[in-house]
Order: sequence, then C-alpha cells, then structure tokens
Amino acid sequence: MAEFNFNDHPHRRFNPLLGEWMLVSPQRSKRPWQGQQEEPDRAERPAYDPTCYLCPGNVRANGEHNPQYTGTFVFDNDFAALQADVPAGDLNVEGLLQAKAESGVGRVICFSPRHDLTLPEMSVEAIRGVVDVWVEQFQELGAQPDINYVQIFENKGFMMGCSNPHPHGQIWAQRHVPGDPAKETVQQEAYYREHGKTLLADYLALELRTKERVVVENDHFVVLVPFWAAWPYETLVLPRRVVQDITQLSDEERTAFADIIRRLTIRYDNLFQTSFPYSAGLHQRPTDGQEHESWHLHMHFYPPLLRSATVRKFMVGYELLAEAQRDITAEYAAQRLRELPEVHYKAKL
Amino acid sequence: MAEFNFNDHPHRRFNPLLGEWMLVSPQRSKRPWQGQQEEPDRAERPAYDPTCYLCPGNVRANGEHNPQYTGTFVFDNDFAALQADVPAGDLNVEGLLQAKAESGVGRVICFSPRHDLTLPEMSVEAIRGVVDVWVEQFQELGAQPDINYVQIFENKGFMMGCSNPHPHGQIWAQRHVPGDPAKETVQQEAYYREHGKTLLADYLALELRTKERVVVENDHFVVLVPFWAAWPYETLVLPRRVVQDITQLSDEERTAFADIIRRLTIRYDNLFQTSFPYSAGLHQRPTDGQEHESWHLHMHFYPPLLRSATVRKFMVGYELLAEAQRDITAEYAAQRLRELPEVHYKAKL
Ligand SMILES: O=P(O)(O)O[C@H]1O[C@H](CO)[C@@H](O)[C@H](O)[C@H]1O
Ligand SMILES: O=P(O)(O)O[C@H]1O[C@H](CO)[C@@H](O)[C@H](O)[C@H]1O
Repeated sequence: MAEFNFNDHPHRRFNPLLGEWMLVSPQRSKRPWQGQQEEPDRAERPAYDPTCYLCPGNVRANGEHNPQYTGTFVFDNDFAALQADVPAGDLNVEGLLQAKAESGVGRVICFSPRHDLTLPEMSVEAIRGVVDVWVEQFQELGAQPDINYVQIFENKGFMMGCSNPHPHGQIWAQRHVPGDPAKETVQQEAYYREHGKTLLADYLALELRTKERVVVENDHFVVLVPFWAAWPYETLVLPRRVVQDITQLSDEERTAFADIIRRLTIRYDNLFQTSFPYSAGLHQRPTDGQEHESWHLHMHFYPPLLRSATVRKFMVGYELLAEAQRDITAEYAAQRLRELPEVHYKAKL
Repeated sequence: MAEFNFNDHPHRRFNPLLGEWMLVSPQRSKRPWQGQQEEPDRAERPAYDPTCYLCPGNVRANGEHNPQYTGTFVFDNDFAALQADVPAGDLNVEGLLQAKAESGVGRVICFSPRHDLTLPEMSVEAIRGVVDVWVEQFQELGAQPDINYVQIFENKGFMMGCSNPHPHGQIWAQRHVPGDPAKETVQQEAYYREHGKTLLADYLALELRTKERVVVENDHFVVLVPFWAAWPYETLVLPRRVVQDITQLSDEERTAFADIIRRLTIRYDNLFQTSFPYSAGLHQRPTDGQEHESWHLHMHFYPPLLRSATVRKFMVGYELLAEAQRDITAEYAAQRLRELPEVHYKAKL
C-alpha cells in the first residue's frame, strides 16, 4: 500500500477554533456532476434602481425615505430577527424543553449608493468607508449593556439568500453569545491559558513558515485557506497584530483591511469569472465587558461555489447529519486563488 | 410591556441532543421575500429511463451493468468519499494542524426499480423493503472491525444536492464517529448517567403529554417537530420502545417504521403540493463494540422549504457564522403538518 498522502487519501482535519473535525475526500473531485446547476448572476444593473429599497432617496418597507447618502448608510432592519424590547422569559421543563427570551438589534449597512457595485468593484477608499462603519457600529452596539455579542456579516448573491443585489451587509447584535463565537471563545481561552499567546497568532506564524495555504498578504493582514476549511474556497482573514476587536485597529490597519478585502474578493470574482457568492463575517470578542485577551479578531469567508459559476458544493445529507465534508484540499484551493490576477475580470473588458 | 410569548417574541431554544442553542424569530415570518425562487421539480418521469445509471439493467460509471432488480439494489458508490484501503496517516503540528487518515465505505441504495417514484409514492411493503436493507447494511457494515459508525441517509431533490431523481439513498460508514453522532453520544450518555433513562424516551413522554408538536403516530413510532428544530419543517422520527439501532426492531416495528415514513413524507409532499426536498437520515449507536445503552435510535428529516414550493430557508450569514435561526415556530410547523391529509396530492388527481 502506498504511503499516506493528503492529496490522494481521505482524511479528517481538526478545526481548533470550533473544536470540531471535518472530512476531506480529495479523490472525489473526479466525480462527474449531473445535479442542479446554479444560475450565474449575469444581470447588468443600473447605478440607480428606482425599485430598490436600498438606493438613496427611495422608500423602504416602513414608509421612510432613505437619505441621499453618498458613502455608506446604516438603518434598523425593517424585518429584524432580533428586537430590543422583549419581555423576560425563561422555560426549563426537565432540561428537555429549554428556552430563553432573546433581545437585540438588527441593522442593515449599505456599502455604497451605487446599486451596480459589489465590494470587489469598489475602491480601497470606499471599502475603507465600510470598515469605518463596522468600527462605529461595533463601538456603539457593543457599549449597550444588553448587548454581549455583535455579529457583522454579508450575504452576497442570490445563492446565499441575499434578496437585494444592492451592496449591503447586516449586523445582528444580541444579549447572548451565539453558538460559533461561544465555541471560539472556549477554544481560544483554553489555548491562551496553555500557551500565553492567541491560538490564531501561533497558527498564523505556522502558516507563514510554508505559505502553502496563504492566498494574499499586505503589511497588516494575511488571507489564507485554513487547514480545516469546510467550504471549497473558504478563507480566513487575519490581522498580523493581535487585536480583540475592530475598534483596536490603527488608521493604517483599517486601510490595510479594506485593501485585503478588495484583493481577496477580486480573486474570488476572477476564479470563475462571475460575481462570486459568499457569506462572510467578522468574529470578535464578546462585548460583555470582559477583556478577552485570548480573542483574535478574524473574518471568515464561506463561499459555496465548487467547480464553476454554476456548480456549487451542497452541504446536505452526510454534512447535515454527520459532519462537514469537502472534495478539493485546502492547499489546492489556496494555490488556485493565489495564482489569480488582482485586476477584476470585468475591468479588463 | 406585554408578557413573554413564544409565538410573538424572539427567543433561543436548546437542542439537548447536540448541546447547542438556536434562535427563533417568530415575528419575522411577516418579512416579504424578494430573493431567489427555487425551481419546483415538475418533471414527468418515465418508469424506466435508459440514461439513468440507477435503473435496472443500465450501465454505471465503472462499466458494470445493474442487475434487473425488482425491489431494492445496493452497490458500492463509484465516487465514494470514503475508501477502504487508506494507509495510516496522522499529523499533529502543535495542535494547530491536526489530521488523521480516514477509511470507510460508501454505498448507494436504490429504493425501487421505478425511476418515477419517491418514498411517499411507494407502498408500505415497498418501503419496508428499504427498511430491511437498512437493517442488513447496518448489520454487515457495523460488524466490520474498522467501521465504528454507519451513516444511512437520503438527499431528496435537486435543491438538496441530489444528482439523480431515481429514488435512492446512501450509506457512508467509517472508522471515526463523525461530529453530530459524537455530540449526540456525549449528550445521551450524560443524560442516561443522571436519569437512568434515555434522553429521547423522556423527551417523547413529555411531548406525548401535550401533543403540541406531534405530527403523526402509529403503534410503534411517533413523528414530531422537535422543540429545538432548526429547519422550518424539520421532524424527528422516534420509536416508542428504546432501541440503540435498527437491527433491534421487531418485524412489526419495521413495518410500522415504513408506515410512519410513508405517512410523514406524504404530508410533506402535500404541504406545498410538490415533491418535497429534504435530507434525512438515521442516527444510531456507534458500531465500536460498546453497548451504548444510552443511545436511542432516531431519524432526522431536514427539509429546506419555508413558505412554498419555491421559497426556501437559507442557512447563510448569521446561521453560518453564529448559530441556526428559524422564523416559524416548531409548534406552528407541527400544526401545519398535522392538519394535512394522508392521501398523496397526486393520487387525488
Ligand atoms: O453523493 P452525491 O449524491 O453525488 O452528492 C451529494 O451528497 C453528498 C453527501 O451528503 C454531498 O457530499 C454532496 O455535496 C451532494 O451533492
Ligand atoms: O435578512 P435577509 O437578507 O432578508 O435574509 C438572509 O439572511 C439572514 C441572515 O443570515 C437569513 O436568516 C435568511 O435566511 C437569509 O435569507
């Protein structure tokens, strides 16, 4: 029998941030695909769409008019999953029926007044404006006594449940720390107690030794396909300096964050010459007043496409019932993304 | 402020099987949907399709001919994610890069020779044939010394990554117990140690008191929308008698299992008058030679549709980064499913 080899043989990898394993089946990438084909988003959009509830000046569901904003614009989600004034409620029937009232805030952030742009098509300066809003929002919401966690994220593309192509993201901020950030807190704390350094600082140092999984870097940020990536082209954006949250980034680091997001998302669009769908979001320390020195700010990108603009990875059956599974290796994905140009494919036309 | 009320106010519920919380936002079901519409599967299919690699007599990817099977038919997946002969391999770089070779078996189970049927359109006798195959397969694979867990599942519908409409399911059986069954093992063991009864036996007893979340029952099985359901119409199929795995079911219980699957999936198809997509699968004791008396066999159904045959729930952004979230309550979903007829909508035409 041949020697074990990560590029050919099925294996499991460990995600130290969540404390969970996942399955890698590199030999399976040869599988032909006869299932559902996605509809790539080829629409040509106008810079202003009179029917879009996010465009400047237009009317939203609640009857309000958006201002004639020129950069970013933030408002309370008209159909938020979280609400501020929820009466206290707590149920516990024999440990089997357990529920707790949850309160919080849902906001929408328009990234640009331009209906026809996406992050990779915006300038570094414009993306820096988005980073600044993330900082302000984290500061403002995190300071509220009833908010102990602030989730900033973006769903991009119809495939990712995004209902409006106008470039925008969301914030869900709430009383309880939700599942994944809570697990990441436990894992990072345990690592910090043992090593006196953050898990992600040590992990980053390790990755920078081989650069096998590194996609793109600048002075302050590194993007890599984590060793334990579940989605085909999943990436992790890491600041070189340990910070617990986005408010601690210096002026220069904020611009570097905008730069790295731009360079990563351009590569994503170039991969399959399509507006690359993803869900992406920041993970930061809980805003419960604790210091959380074990926390290391990072941003996850979870994109579903696998082979082309029309063939995605389905996280179904085995993945929903057992654990995450991928076909291409993290190393292969990193190499593909690394080799792509940083000029947007549409700019070249 | 009004009193807390599960039907109106956001809250979190606890999943005792996984030990994880999820978010319920009942007020959000009023949200209009302007995003992606799914393509309902309206194709009329022939009983035999000469181009289908699962139909009797046809040629598969590896050049083999399927037999002229008349009931069920099992074969090794030609593009399995797991392989039997994987050389040993183990990596651990500072606890941050951890990987282990994984070995196992992937199989496909054709449920019927008829290309145009699905479980809800098959007779109880025919579904009983599928249950019998699950029993045989669990027995055979579970007895192999290198296989410590057997995941039996079905992906139904193109929306759930199923690449061939011919009715079929899969088995992935492997050396390591994967994530969710491993968590369920921990949770069920802890409960059993404390109460001397299985978690799901006590939970079932509790649900049978109010029947608020019960969908359908027969002498040996109960289907309910679990209190902690994440997917809109998620259900849990539970045997009334505690068994650790499917081989322990009596002859009568096997038929009752087939009956309840039929009655549940007919209701699913009737809900939106469409061939209802889902991923479903059995959770059973690990086959590691231990007794696992704390384990309670069950079957999960995870269906994505939310409002109609064309509007699904997206588990994206917040859900991928934070935790599972749903809009309609488990109680509402159970009531909807309970009120549906048990005659398949196509049979009435
Ligand atoms: O094995 P299939 O049916 O080709 O593939 C389908 O089910 C598998 C197991 O859930 C998933 O890993 C794939 O993403 C999905 O497309
Ligand atoms: O809030 P939106 O954009 O209407 O909705 C989208 O993002 C939410 C947060 O990830 C999800 O809960 C929804 O399923 C998805 O469709």
